[in-house]
Amino acid sequence: MQRYFANDKKDNIFILRDDDYYHIKVVMRFKIGEKIEVVYENEPYLCKLIDNYQVELIEKLDKKENNIKTTLILPLLKEQKMDFILQKATELGVSEFILFNAKRSIIRFDVAKESKKLERWGRICKEAAEQSKRCDIPTIKVASKISELKELEGLKLICSTIENNNSLKKVLQVNKNCAKISMIVGPEGGFDPQEEKNIIELGFTPITLGNTIMRVETVPIFLLSVINYEYME
Amino acid sequence: MQRYFANDKKDNIFILRDDDYYHIKVVMRFKIGEKIEVVYENEPYLCKLIDNYQVELIEKLDKKENNIKTTLILPLLKEQKMDFILQKATELGVSEFILFNAKRSIIRFDVAKESKKLERWGRICKEAAEQSKRCDIPTIKVASKISELKELEGLKLICSTIENNNSLKKVLQVNKNCAKISMIVGPEGGFDPQEEKNIIELGFTPITLGNTIMRVETVPIFLLSVINYEYME
Repeated sequence: MQRYFANDKKDNIFILRDDDYYHIKVVMRFKIGEKIEVVYENEPYLCKLIDNYQVELIEKLDKKENNIKTTLILPLLKEQKMDFILQKATELGVSEFILFNAKRSIIRFDVAKESKKLERWGRICKEAAEQSKRCDIPTIKVASKISELKELEGLKLICSTIENNNSLKKVLQVNKNCAKISMIVGPEGGFDPQEEKNIIELGFTPITLGNTIMRVETVPIFLLSVINYEYME
Repeated sequence: MQRYFANDKKDNIFILRDDDYYHIKVVMRFKIGEKIEVVYENEPYLCKLIDNYQVELIEKLDKKENNIKTTLILPLLKEQKMDFILQKATELGVSEFILFNAKRSIIRFDVAKESKKLERWGRICKEAAEQSKRCDIPTIKVASKISELKELEGLKLICSTIENNNSLKKVLQVNKNCAKISMIVGPEGGFDPQEEKNIIELGFTPITLGNTIMRVETVPIFLLSVINYEYME
């Protein structure tokens, strides 16, 4: 069943965004009386379309949630790769994205100028969250300085190009049941060695992903798949 | 270092495909004397470009190989999704693709008519294999009947939409150290229930991937990431 995130609720009627009403009427061609799912304040509801496409609450739905919070820290990549990561990582349950300017990033990030980009990325995450029936939309933050990453709690991993021995598997095996994992991924050329050292000093554990040589956009998907798997029953 | 697959070898000179010579000269703008890597009969070699862009063998390189053979069995999907799966699964070490006509596939497959498509897909796999420094290119086969899948050896998994209890994790934990894993993935609408039953009768174990709802093209990447992880040291 199609799922939408509501902005507001008045009595038994949920208020959606204008483009969601458009999606309901024009794209999906739903008829009055048909049912949809709506998430409001992180809770899912079964709803019915009534007069004039108002969205009426029928009942609250059960909520399935991940036990683990995951943060993906990544440099700005080319548009197509960026969109791909945002969509797939949202599907795979990521809680939060943090963008940073890596020394070897080809594309630089200036928060003040990028509000349009942030809006577009937010839309990609919202749509992926709806499709994969999540009850929350991952947030997108920007770290203006690498040192801000020091404040992150829980297990912190850096995908190293230098580390050979400490595999992702070894690290996850000795850190079972942690409630929060943050992972930082480098740009296409990898981290600058001094930059990697600085990040390790902020509490990040360097890991290797084994023999497989992956494109930069594949790495986050690999990491999140593995975390989903490790926390699978 | 850039890697190419050679077609032939005469004394100390490897013979590449015409479009690889074009790639060397025009795309990469390599100069005479520069080094490249070449794979010939599944063995990697360090080579040097000599007069007229001939590729001369310098020395044999060490080979890192996966211990496990993986087969991905999938229906025909829309072009973009198909290309995505072929590229990413090759990066993640898949050995073989088998295409089949699922009952609910939107796109049907007629081997006789699709030689151009197969050629294009082969090229995508070759390029991804070069980029991820593999020593082999995954093969692409077509199963004209589902019953042909009976012959596959090793652990055989079907991503079920019905199964709730038997998670991928449970199954992999009791099947450690198997040498071959085959995985069949359904089309966008999922398997037809009778079709799923038939596949299970061919020796496939139904598994669930947990609570995560993934797009069809994300599933193979998830599966191969997890297998890479399980066989990581």
